[in-house]
Amino acid sequence: MTRTVQKYGGSSVASADHLKRVAGLVAARAKAGEQMVVVVSAMGDTTDDLVDLAAQITSKPRAREMDMLLSTGEIVSSSLLSMALHEQGVDAVSLTGPQAGIRTDTAHARARIASIRAERLEGELTAGRVVIVAGFQGISDDGDLTTLGRGGSDTTAVALAAALDADRCEIYTDVAGIYTADPRVAPDARPLGDIAYDEMLELATTGARVMHARAVELGAIYGVEIFVKSSFNPDAPGTIIRRETIMEQGNKVRAIAHENRVGKVTVRGVPDRPGIAVGIFEPLAEAGISVDTIVQNASQERTTDLTFTVEPGDIEGAVEVIERLMPEIRAREVVTADNLGTVSIVGTGMATSPGYASKMFRALTDAGVNIEMISTGDIRITCVVEAARVADAVRALHAAFELDQA
Amino acid sequence: MTRTVQKYGGSSVASADHLKRVAGLVAARAKAGEQMVVVVSAMGDTTDDLVDLAAQITSKPRAREMDMLLSTGEIVSSSLLSMALHEQGVDAVSLTGPQAGIRTDTAHARARIASIRAERLEGELTAGRVVIVAGFQGISDDGDLTTLGRGGSDTTAVALAAALDADRCEIYTDVAGIYTADPRVAPDARPLGDIAYDEMLELATTGARVMHARAVELGAIYGVEIFVKSSFNPDAPGTIIRRETIMEQGNKVRAIAHENRVGKVTVRGVPDRPGIAVGIFEPLAEAGISVDTIVQNASQERTTDLTFTVEPGDIEGAVEVIERLMPEIRAREVVTADNLGTVSIVGTGMATSPGYASKMFRALTDAGVNIEMISTGDIRITCVVEAARVADAVRALHAAFELDQA
Repeated sequence: MTRTVQKYGGSSVASADHLKRVAGLVAARAKAGEQMVVVVSAMGDTTDDLVDLAAQITSKPRAREMDMLLSTGEIVSSSLLSMALHEQGVDAVSLTGPQAGIRTDTAHARARIASIRAERLEGELTAGRVVIVAGFQGISDDGDLTTLGRGGSDTTAVALAAALDADRCEIYTDVAGIYTADPRVAPDARPLGDIAYDEMLELATTGARVMHARAVELGAIYGVEIFVKSSFNPDAPGTIIRRETIMEQGNKVRAIAHENRVGKVTVRGVPDRPGIAVGIFEPLAEAGISVDTIVQNASQERTTDLTFTVEPGDIEGAVEVIERLMPEIRAREVVTADNLGTVSIVGTGMATSPGYASKMFRALTDAGVNIEMISTGDIRITCVVEAARVADAVRALHAAFELDQA
Repeated sequence: MTRTVQKYGGSSVASADHLKRVAGLVAARAKAGEQMVVVVSAMGDTTDDLVDLAAQITSKPRAREMDMLLSTGEIVSSSLLSMALHEQGVDAVSLTGPQAGIRTDTAHARARIASIRAERLEGELTAGRVVIVAGFQGISDDGDLTTLGRGGSDTTAVALAAALDADRCEIYTDVAGIYTADPRVAPDARPLGDIAYDEMLELATTGARVMHARAVELGAIYGVEIFVKSSFNPDAPGTIIRRETIMEQGNKVRAIAHENRVGKVTVRGVPDRPGIAVGIFEPLAEAGISVDTIVQNASQERTTDLTFTVEPGDIEGAVEVIERLMPEIRAREVVTADNLGTVSIVGTGMATSPGYASKMFRALTDAGVNIEMISTGDIRITCVVEAARVADAVRALHAAFELDQA
């Protein structure tokens, strides 16, 4: 018997009518004999509305209480989807994350799944029920509700697929898979038939919003093949995320990712001595500021310029930290910019084939896009550019690497 | 150290500002050194909104899924109240019904509390935290969320007060206690200083909406004194519900209760033989129809008329049941009315003092209110009257028994 885990995102369950449609998709599969586990996100803007409600009460809510509050959104959509299945003559039961046996650590608001005790889930499946699981949540050893952070329902689905040894794991979203670039930016972008875990991870961490990076990571660890599909067009093939894609692909750039809002902090005239980087980045990490690209410029007269990117909302906090460090690091000045973006090319083959970087820089230069910073990974090259030029850069790269052609 | 359980109803926590005000009341008590446990209902119309959402999906939701859905309302208000207390510098933690150890039977939508495992609650109190408990909910032995039915948060509060051996149990609502009659109907109604459990029970079951009958019952069993107060006027004395009120009160009618919407079903010409009542009321109970007042008229020519009251929404179902029984009970006909109401007088002393019934009938007759049915209990007399005359009847009785005078 085929066992399938599906996940439907917030836009797929935004209203009662949406839920009925999703119930129809699930019912068809259940009636065809599949064992179905369905993970749901909160309906539409529910999570944002709850966050707004908390903001009316306090500007610094404790993460434990926010988790308690936010977990209700997924419980609402789960119970309603269960009812919609009953209405279509399918036996179903909704479970909260704790009821589904999803145990996490105690890191509220960004908890990690520790284990899944699947006894109840297995029991419900054996009893012939479709099991609806509230995504994004679990229970800590303290008996408290935890949430897995933004996009956590993807992680719930992949973790359940691994724990239940499911035959299929399907992530339904509002787009028809993973595209070669964001189709809103590059109109000739096309969905990829498949993509490797590490490629998807790079895309997810450099701006592609379709899949949550942690879910992809988990898929890679447990070898769960993830089908990304559109709930509004479920018959389209979508994209399979898996270990190996077609060998030795001719075109080794698979897709372009971009981010529109990136901030930059430059520490000028830092004395060039060992340990200076750790002296800056450790205090930033302690202040909870997440740093992305870091570039250290060639030193002049024994000083160096250290530049890093952060979320624009973190610029102020980063400057505060560095101003505090100034007596110690003896840098000349700190300057910032918040009008930047990034564009990245990703592809497994890039690691072993030269020439991709120069082709990327050439394409951006020909399009008149100035490159502010560069960072590279094994299978990724990222350029920081002016935010206003990000869309042009995406289109230029999409064309240069012929991603419009299969 | 004084240990207090409070409960705040939906109108007391209807918005972020309401929650902040309630947090202020709780904080003052916590800062004065009391151990505080606070039970909350869902905010304002939340429960109704969730019911409406379910109605968009199905007309016959399973009770288990409704419980899952509705339980979220109280979790939202609990976590927000906890945040509001943090904002006021008070350590607090919100708990779901299951986390608070409230174990129930499996009767979804009308679960009864079986036991309370108070270890976590005691631990949080010992740690110096205010504990906010989501009202109206618990967990069954199956591990499923259950709800206690309408007004269930009152029951949660009284049960917790009993389990925690609290010194005080305070129910905050939007009126300043238990009144001699509904002040919207009888403008000179006044709040009672105290009332006995059995009096309150009779009032609650004959139309007074302030307190949930099951909560009063639980208070009586465990000897929990219940203070009913207004959260909008917390300094007003309110009403104490307790075992004994002031002995030998001169005026033995304590209060008037009323209901505006009552249906009536009359089975005419039933052969007057033993077992006829059980033959009718057992099938009604099996059909889930709750019958209130029952009157069997004097028999004429070996037949009798059997009349009973039901909720207007249950008239149709009751008639269906009786039509089905007709071949067996051989009654002449079934007639119904849905335009009725009730008015009741309640008072412990009535049991041993004659003359209350005749005084009641006289007052109604003088006010030109026709009595359709009469039923009496130990400490209660109820008259069924035309719905349109209920308000007049309440005022007439309030005056006749001089309830405007302390």
